[in-house]
Amino acid sequence: MIVLGIDPGTASTGYGVVKGDGGGMGLVSLVECGVIRTKARDPLPSRLHEIYEGVAELLARHKPDALSVEDVFYAKNVRTTVVLGHARGVVLLAGQQANVEIHEIAPAEIKKAVVGTGAATKEQVQFMLTRLLKLKTAPQPTDAADGVAAAFACLMSARVPTLRDARTSRLGRV
Amino acid sequence: MIVLGIDPGTASTGYGVVKGDGGGMGLVSLVECGVIRTKARDPLPSRLHEIYEGVAELLARHKPDALSVEDVFYAKNVRTTVVLGHARGVVLLAGQQANVEIHEIAPAEIKKAVVGTGAATKEQVQFMLTRLLKLKTAPQPTDAADGVAAAFACLMSARVPTLRDARTSRLGRV
Repeated sequence: MIVLGIDPGTASTGYGVVKGDGGGMGLVSLVECGVIRTKARDPLPSRLHEIYEGVAELLARHKPDALSVEDVFYAKNVRTTVVLGHARGVVLLAGQQANVEIHEIAPAEIKKAVVGTGAATKEQVQFMLTRLLKLKTAPQPTDAADGVAAAFACLMSARVPTLRDARTSRLGRV
Repeated sequence: MIVLGIDPGTASTGYGVVKGDGGGMGLVSLVECGVIRTKARDPLPSRLHEIYEGVAELLARHKPDALSVEDVFYAKNVRTTVVLGHARGVVLLAGQQANVEIHEIAPAEIKKAVVGTGAATKEQVQFMLTRLLKLKTAPQPTDAADGVAAAFACLMSARVPTLRDARTSRLGRV
């Protein structure tokens, strides 16, 4: 099972592709990770187009079984959160057009799947990801690590049938 | 000059196509208006896809000179505003892909262009639109009227060269 995880952002959208054997606590490995960067001076529609194209390219190249998108982080600045919603919208659209199963995961849910607690710090998430994926160093930059974490959390939930059924039904899929 | 105006919304996206002769306070007419509706029980990615497809179809059919998108209305419920950002993101993406000039207009700016004051009520906007476009009744439903108002406001600003230059430079276009 291959999962593409996305941490949406207008300036930098992190992604990670994680592969699992599908049964028990077997081998899980990192296929690729990185960020889709956009220029702050470009108009918003053009930046959204770059994010959309980047995610569509990853979906076409890796043909993942699922797309895992981190839920909105409610920033103190409402404007920031709303612009983030724009970026997240085009990521979900790319997934829908690729006809892939889409999972929306809350930040706390991702931390819980990787570290065991929803209150984990960014450093703890990176430390555990490095160990679980048997990497030499944590995925870089931080946004890429967040994309990897979103993919990892989705893969873990897929291994618990009851959790998976609950998630898919919440999204209104059969 | 033809302008497609959009009032984005997850449940109902209003639109209006307005045509002007391009010079002075000449003839302005309504070509078409309506709403793109999505089902509340459908998952968000599927609803975003319907909005995207609907706007792309309007752009392909009317080949407007400009796309005018109403800016985000900051609802009391932050969650509502963020979901609205998702819808707005796919509308801007459709415009970017159609290579049309995109104008983002604040609600108060739209009211000012139609009624003359940014503090106008919804009823005042509908009344003035009906008169200015020489219609028998106000565009229905309300969301469609909001789309028409966004298109009308963009057309009016395009008739004042200095305003237009300011707007396009803000969007980083030449």
